[in-house]
Amino acid sequence: MTEHSTGAEIERVIQLLARLPGLGPRSARRAVLHLMKNRHTLLEPLAEALHRASEAVRTCSECGNLDTRDPCGICSSTRRRRDVICVVEDVSDLWALERAGAFNGIYHVTGGVLSAIEGITPEDLNIPRLVERAGAAEVSEVILALNATVEGQTTGHYIAEALKDCNVRVTRLAHGVPVGGELEYLDEGTLTAALKARS
Amino acid sequence: MTEHSTGAEIERVIQLLARLPGLGPRSARRAVLHLMKNRHTLLEPLAEALHRASEAVRTCSECGNLDTRDPCGICSSTRRRRDVICVVEDVSDLWALERAGAFNGIYHVTGGVLSAIEGITPEDLNIPRLVERAGAAEVSEVILALNATVEGQTTGHYIAEALKDCNVRVTRLAHGVPVGGELEYLDEGTLTAALKARS
Repeated sequence: MTEHSTGAEIERVIQLLARLPGLGPRSARRAVLHLMKNRHTLLEPLAEALHRASEAVRTCSECGNLDTRDPCGICSSTRRRRDVICVVEDVSDLWALERAGAFNGIYHVTGGVLSAIEGITPEDLNIPRLVERAGAAEVSEVILALNATVEGQTTGHYIAEALKDCNVRVTRLAHGVPVGGELEYLDEGTLTAALKARS
Repeated sequence: MTEHSTGAEIERVIQLLARLPGLGPRSARRAVLHLMKNRHTLLEPLAEALHRASEAVRTCSECGNLDTRDPCGICSSTRRRRDVICVVEDVSDLWALERAGAFNGIYHVTGGVLSAIEGITPEDLNIPRLVERAGAAEVSEVILALNATVEGQTTGHYIAEALKDCNVRVTRLAHGVPVGGELEYLDEGTLTAALKARS
């Protein structure tokens, strides 16, 4: 597309939107047109909302969550248990657990997994801070809710090792058949785990 | 998701992004996280670019294109032929033709197709203005580049009829086998059209 036909301003929005996950250049163009056609109801509110979020949202210095407050709403809540810390890889995992509504403790976001190849060390993952938090007298359990990938599990092992001297129980999410899942389409690893953990 | 865990600012961006075509609530959340993690390189520039686009971009009063100028870059270009007007349904079609780079005339964007059910009339599609533009002495051809749908073709017929008294040739895009397309997967209508128009 030439600047001639669209203008540098539109072109710039397309380029930036195309960098979002799930959007390519083609869908970014469609999105821009949709924005332009709904200028007052969508384009202007979105520009404003992004600007506000960029001003207001910060990373919680306690747990790594994103919120307008630091400590975040979860860390500063009086209604949450402070004896269980749930360790997740990413803020999106924290959000997923919050949507499930099944956990009422506090979190620790590592922001990634250990990787020798990418040079990601325990310090990068804020693990020393986790050990410090887990060492507090009030904490009795650390749940490792890391992804069930090789990297996630390796990181889990490392964290469990690092927490050995803290007086906490280290637990892990159960493996098993997803709710609504069909056995026929499950991999052998999951089936074996589900069978072993039968109750 | 509760406000507690994400903050109203993030929630607002998710809601707005989820209204873009191609993004649902789930991908909007992923997009927001990606934005937050790339605050300086993506979130702030995007907020700024949207704000600028919303200030600067307008609809061309000549052809209906979107640009920062009115008349738009195409309408005001001295390098484009002014004797051929290409009629398209949507700005996205105009962009697609510009990407193809095969047309060097000017455009007329209808902004939709005639629809009795949705109450879309020739006036809504800016057809009187098209008739006026096509009546100019310099114009010799109007190309109907409307979608090959029933509504697109009906609208094309209506426009051709409306242009009868203008001294212009009304042409249409050819039907045929898409470049790279396999006959086996083409519908009968396209195959029949391609066969009839063989050369």
